[in-house]
Amino acid sequence: MRDESVVAFAMGDPSGISPELAARLLADPRMAGRAVMLVFGDRRVLEMGARHAGVTLDLPNCEASAANGARPTRSCFVDLGHCDPDTITIGRSSAAGGASALANFRCALLAASEGFADLVFFTPFNKHAMRLAESDYVDEIGFVDRTIGAQRSGREFNVLDEVWNARVTSHIPLSKVASSLTAEKVFESLRLTVEVMQGAGFERPRLGVAALNPHAGDGGNFGSEDEAIIRPAVERAQAMQIAATGPVPSDTVFVRALRGEFDAVVTMYHDQGQIAIKLIGFDRGVTLIAGYPFPIVTPAHGTAYDIAGKGVANPGAAEKALELGLSLAARDRRPDATPTMSLHEIVQRARIPGGAA
Amino acid sequence: MRDESVVAFAMGDPSGISPELAARLLADPRMAGRAVMLVFGDRRVLEMGARHAGVTLDLPNCEASAANGARPTRSCFVDLGHCDPDTITIGRSSAAGGASALANFRCALLAASEGFADLVFFTPFNKHAMRLAESDYVDEIGFVDRTIGAQRSGREFNVLDEVWNARVTSHIPLSKVASSLTAEKVFESLRLTVEVMQGAGFERPRLGVAALNPHAGDGGNFGSEDEAIIRPAVERAQAMQIAATGPVPSDTVFVRALRGEFDAVVTMYHDQGQIAIKLIGFDRGVTLIAGYPFPIVTPAHGTAYDIAGKGVANPGAAEKALELGLSLAARDRRPDATPTMSLHEIVQRARIPGGAA
Repeated sequence: MRDESVVAFAMGDPSGISPELAARLLADPRMAGRAVMLVFGDRRVLEMGARHAGVTLDLPNCEASAANGARPTRSCFVDLGHCDPDTITIGRSSAAGGASALANFRCALLAASEGFADLVFFTPFNKHAMRLAESDYVDEIGFVDRTIGAQRSGREFNVLDEVWNARVTSHIPLSKVASSLTAEKVFESLRLTVEVMQGAGFERPRLGVAALNPHAGDGGNFGSEDEAIIRPAVERAQAMQIAATGPVPSDTVFVRALRGEFDAVVTMYHDQGQIAIKLIGFDRGVTLIAGYPFPIVTPAHGTAYDIAGKGVANPGAAEKALELGLSLAARDRRPDATPTMSLHEIVQRARIPGGAA
Repeated sequence: MRDESVVAFAMGDPSGISPELAARLLADPRMAGRAVMLVFGDRRVLEMGARHAGVTLDLPNCEASAANGARPTRSCFVDLGHCDPDTITIGRSSAAGGASALANFRCALLAASEGFADLVFFTPFNKHAMRLAESDYVDEIGFVDRTIGAQRSGREFNVLDEVWNARVTSHIPLSKVASSLTAEKVFESLRLTVEVMQGAGFERPRLGVAALNPHAGDGGNFGSEDEAIIRPAVERAQAMQIAATGPVPSDTVFVRALRGEFDAVVTMYHDQGQIAIKLIGFDRGVTLIAGYPFPIVTPAHGTAYDIAGKGVANPGAAEKALELGLSLAARDRRPDATPTMSLHEIVQRARIPGGAA
């Protein structure tokens, strides 16, 4: 059964495994049959990826049909023509590579924001390259906020088969974590996590809520926030029939999740979740940014410069990312959305200085 | 070859797996042949453990030979007679059980402190039971400090086959971690870790030093401590030929250790290490408290009330704890230490109110 969703597909860093991953996904009938792919990149980079992956692509350009502002009905490629593979080095980050990835991402975000697509998917970026291209690039969430003019920032989820992870605070100093927490923020994270997971098919997701302090504060001996902030948030969620448990000492909450007690762990700070997720198998997983009008998904692994160009990159996590994005978008599809600008205009807006699109 | 070390062996919580673990270790010729065991407990609890484990013990009481203040030359049992198994319930914590474990631990600490023994080993405690018995009991380190009148507190290490973990701060609120760190403290942790690991046979242990902030502060975007505090401490250690690497983002430092890059990870706060260690396999590991005149070792797992009394408890981690303690003590043996008091006096000092010793 064909899914009518449209994926705004941004090609990532051209020096890593992104080109071959993109080519492999776009040549795979299992993927191609699932949705309409609206792909943003440079045709020459995609062709290089196809050569590396040893696949043959049949993906027409989509400028013509897009000019009228209608959603595409079959997969096609928007060639930004901004990245000549001969100007970049496989396995090495560069400003040119970062700039092209940013342009592709901006196009995909604007396309989804304008209603051309129901979700955004991207193959791996290299943050260093993106900063070489735009020095104020901090992270995806800030970039999305600026690009689509979001009223409220999205939240990042790590999604593994075994467990999901969402966090209340993220890229802030550890010294600011405790003072940044409020019961309202913790509750809002629980609520959003449930909402997103229900979109992904969990009827009543079971959340383990990590404590902030060692031994969950040990009855107040090692800090008060677990009782004063986290417990009230958990109780408020429970009162709304959310299956939340906590505060659970953070050194056992993932162990319990892996034993099957929780579908997701909500952590209070970046490393509290990332330490666990990376040990469990981050690279097999998916990164989801939710809380915007459309989901944004990508494989959790990076550009893997060490194996780039060899055609050996495993597309498993990228496939999972696409599948998750499609299942979330299916709940929230916007088939009647009418773009207010053409794809051509989107590309113009997203163009980078020096781009040849 | 017989090791001349003497182990001050404290029986832990009588309601858990401690009695059967103690009986199994003491009946095992592999263990009994390694060192002289000076065991503190209640004979009736040990006999109960032997029944549960299905082993036969040949362990004489040692009061007589100990009265003269000399180190024991063969394994023997100091019967405190303070815990009638009929008064406790298997699988349930109790003040009586906690009090007896504390008395055993106190005896073992005093025995080692007085020179009767070269290391302290204990089978698992139950912290809740210990607090029922002594409400001001916080953790082992505070208890050891008070019992032996230590000038300086020891440090806890988690020891797994794969990786060691030491931490700079421990049982404090997360909000206090950043302000508690100094380059001096971090350096001192690195130095002590190397010293202890060399005692355990690592010629030049390779230390991964965890960063405090997400992405190691991301060049100052997410906090300054990684560059201002941790890096100078690592550089000072490197200047002393310590194989230290860091600050390493804490979400990859354990992954790298498991790949074989580091023998130990030094973490800045409790959960930063414990989240990883518990996922890797805490229960298989050993807890070592070092920094006192003698090492203190115990299996990392707990009292396992759910399987207590069934004779199924795996003694593997307890054996590893004993072996680690013996290898550390062998470096630092004190065969010429002359106790200033008799074992009888030690038992008197360690006696709990209501004890029948």
